[in-house]
Amino acid sequence: MFFELQHTSRGSAARAGRITTGHGAIETPVFMPVGTAATVKGILHRDLAHDAGAQIILANTYHLYLRPGTEILEEVGGVHRFCGWERPILTDSGGFQVFSLADCRKISEEGCRFSSHIDGSKHLFTPERVIDAQRSIGADIMMAFDECPPGTAEKEYAQKSLELTDRWLARCWEQYERTQPKYGYRQSLFPIVQGVTYPDLRERSAMSAVRFPADGYAIGGLAVGEPAEDMYRMIEVVNAVLPKEKPRYLMGVGTPANILEAIERGVDMFDCVMPTRNGRNGMLFTTEGVINIRNAKWASDFTPLDPEAVSFVDTAYTKAYLRHLAISGEMLAAQIASLHNVAFYVWLTEEARRHILADTFREWKPQMLAKITRRL
Amino acid sequence: MFFELQHTSRGSAARAGRITTGHGAIETPVFMPVGTAATVKGILHRDLAHDAGAQIILANTYHLYLRPGTEILEEVGGVHRFCGWERPILTDSGGFQVFSLADCRKISEEGCRFSSHIDGSKHLFTPERVIDAQRSIGADIMMAFDECPPGTAEKEYAQKSLELTDRWLARCWEQYERTQPKYGYRQSLFPIVQGVTYPDLRERSAMSAVRFPADGYAIGGLAVGEPAEDMYRMIEVVNAVLPKEKPRYLMGVGTPANILEAIERGVDMFDCVMPTRNGRNGMLFTTEGVINIRNAKWASDFTPLDPEAVSFVDTAYTKAYLRHLAISGEMLAAQIASLHNVAFYVWLTEEARRHILADTFREWKPQMLAKITRRL
Repeated sequence: MFFELQHTSRGSAARAGRITTGHGAIETPVFMPVGTAATVKGILHRDLAHDAGAQIILANTYHLYLRPGTEILEEVGGVHRFCGWERPILTDSGGFQVFSLADCRKISEEGCRFSSHIDGSKHLFTPERVIDAQRSIGADIMMAFDECPPGTAEKEYAQKSLELTDRWLARCWEQYERTQPKYGYRQSLFPIVQGVTYPDLRERSAMSAVRFPADGYAIGGLAVGEPAEDMYRMIEVVNAVLPKEKPRYLMGVGTPANILEAIERGVDMFDCVMPTRNGRNGMLFTTEGVINIRNAKWASDFTPLDPEAVSFVDTAYTKAYLRHLAISGEMLAAQIASLHNVAFYVWLTEEARRHILADTFREWKPQMLAKITRRL
Repeated sequence: MFFELQHTSRGSAARAGRITTGHGAIETPVFMPVGTAATVKGILHRDLAHDAGAQIILANTYHLYLRPGTEILEEVGGVHRFCGWERPILTDSGGFQVFSLADCRKISEEGCRFSSHIDGSKHLFTPERVIDAQRSIGADIMMAFDECPPGTAEKEYAQKSLELTDRWLARCWEQYERTQPKYGYRQSLFPIVQGVTYPDLRERSAMSAVRFPADGYAIGGLAVGEPAEDMYRMIEVVNAVLPKEKPRYLMGVGTPANILEAIERGVDMFDCVMPTRNGRNGMLFTTEGVINIRNAKWASDFTPLDPEAVSFVDTAYTKAYLRHLAISGEMLAAQIASLHNVAFYVWLTEEARRHILADTFREWKPQMLAKITRRL
C-alpha cells in the first residue's frame, strides 16, 4: 500500500491524498460505508460503487469469523469474491464487537474469550488469531486487535487498558510479519491509538503505535459519548504525533459535522453506521439540512429528496413518496434513505477534498457546516 | 387503450399481443409485479423497469385510498408521478382487500363498510366510490369492485355473490362512463369474472361481463385453495366466452407452472405476490428449478444465482453469498431475491411470448415446465 500526500490545505491541517491498494486507489479524505457482514445494509454493491461512489467499504472480523466463517472465505478466495465487491475492503478487528455484542466472559493477557451473539458458542480471540482471521478474510487494510475502554473510563483503567492494547499490538505486528497474504495482494495493518480523553495517554498511545512502520494509523475509542470538543482535542493531540506521510483513520466517526472538523484536523479516513442506521429510521442527511422524513410536513412535498442529486434516488423520488414509504413500513424506504445518505457522506468528503486541493477549505467548511446541520 | 392480437400459437390457445396505453405499450403475455402501496417491495423502480424489464406494475386501491390518500395523489397528478414510475399501472379495486385485510363490518347492496387495518377508521366502499378513487389514483387499467367469495363457497352463496358482483359491475360501468380521467390519458375499466369453481356460474359471469364493451376482462377468485386442475378448467370455460380480441387478465396467479398453463389456455396478463413474498422468505425461482437459499447445501456454492442471468444480480452474486445474507437476516437478501424472482417471472412470460410467435410454444412448454418445477 502506498500513500501519496497530495496537498495540505492553506490555513488548516486538512489534507488531500491518494492511497493505492491491490484493489485500486482511494482518494482521501474518504468516507468508508460500513458493511459489517460484507453487506452495507440495504444497498446493492453496484449502487454503492457506481451511484454513491464509495471507494472502499468496511467489513467486520468478528461478524465474518462467526458467519460465514473463515473456511468459506478461504474457499472462495477472500471477502471481495465472496460479496462481489472489487474495490478495497477494510476490516475492523472485532475488538469493539467482542466487548459490545458478544458476551465477553474473560479478558486476559492472552486475549478475550467470548460467546457468539448468534448461537452462544465459545470462542477465543487473541491478537494472533485476529490477524489470522483477517488474512483469511483478505482485507486490504486490517486493524490491530485492541481493548476498547468506555468513554467514561477512569484514568487508571484507561491506562491499564492502553498498556494491554500496546502489548497486543506488538503481538499483532509480530503475527502480521510472520504471515503472508493468502490471495496475492498486499494487506496492510493499522495500529489503533486509544487513551479515552486523556491527552497524555493519547500521546503515549500514538507514540507506541508509530514504533511500527505501518501503512497507516487509526484513532479509536472516540465518539463514544464524550463531548465533541474533547474528541477534536484528542484528534489534535494524536495527529501531532502521527507521521504526516501516512493516512490517518478516525474510527466510527460520525456526524457530517464531526467529519468536517476531523478533516480540518488532518484526518483522512472515516467510517460510520449513521448514514445507513439513521436512514433506516427515516433520517436523511441532505445538502440543505437534516430531514426526519416521517414528519407530517413532508406529506405533500413533491420536491426531490436533495436538489444536489448526490444519488440518482434524489431526483427519482420525492420527499412525499419517501415519507409514504416510511410511514407504510415499506422496506424501499430504508433502501432509498440508506443509498441517499451514503451518497451524501461520500459527496461531502469529495467536496472537502476538492476544496482542500483548491485551498478554499477554510472558507468552505463553516458555510457547509451551517447548511448541513440545519434541521429542516 | 388498444389491444392488437398478434398471433395465436399453433396447437394451443396461447396468444401474443400488444396493449397500447397512455404510458406506453405492453407486450403480452405479461407478468405484472405487485406494488400494493405503489412500491414493489424491495425493488427500486429503476431496477424494476431496466433490469427486470417490468412493463406494467400493479397498485392497490384499498391501500392507496387509505395511505397516502386520494387528495395527495390528486395534488401530485396521479400515482405515476407519486412513485416515479412512467410505465403503465393497473389498480386492483380493493374488493379482495376489504374482505381479507380490513374488518369488513357490513356488506350490503350499497357496498361494503369497513374499518381500516391501519388505524381502525371507518370507511364505505361502493362501486361508485371505488371508480372515483381509481380516477384519482390515475391507473391506466382500473378494476371493477367485486365481492370475492372464498374458494370453498357453496354454490348457493357463490351464486348470490355473483349476482351482487354483477349489479356492482353495472354501477361501476355507469360511474366509469359518467366520469373522466383526471390526468389526460385514457383509463380502462376491466370487469372481473367470478363464480368459484362452478362452470355454469363462471360461464354466466363471463357472459355478464362481456355485456360491457370493456378494453379487457379479468378472471378473479382463482388460486385461492382449489385444485390447480379446477382452476385450469375454469379458465377454459371463461375464455370460451371472453372475446378473442380483448386482453384477458388472470388475477393473483400464481406459480410459474400456473402461469404457463394459463398462457396455454389463452390468458394474456398475470400478477402475483409470489416472486417478492417468497423471495423475502429465501425462495428463488430459477431457470434450473426452485431453490431454498437458506438450505445448508448452498453454503459454499459459489455459482451464480441463475446461469441464465435474468437479472444483473444473478451474476453479481453467488448462492453462497445470498445464503449468508439470508441466514444473517440482512435486508439485502430480500432485495436480491425479490429482484431476481421478478426478473424470472418477466423472463418466463417473455420466453413464452417468443415461442408463441415462433409457433414452438407447444413443444417448449413441457420442457420448461420440467426444468423450472424441479426442487434444487
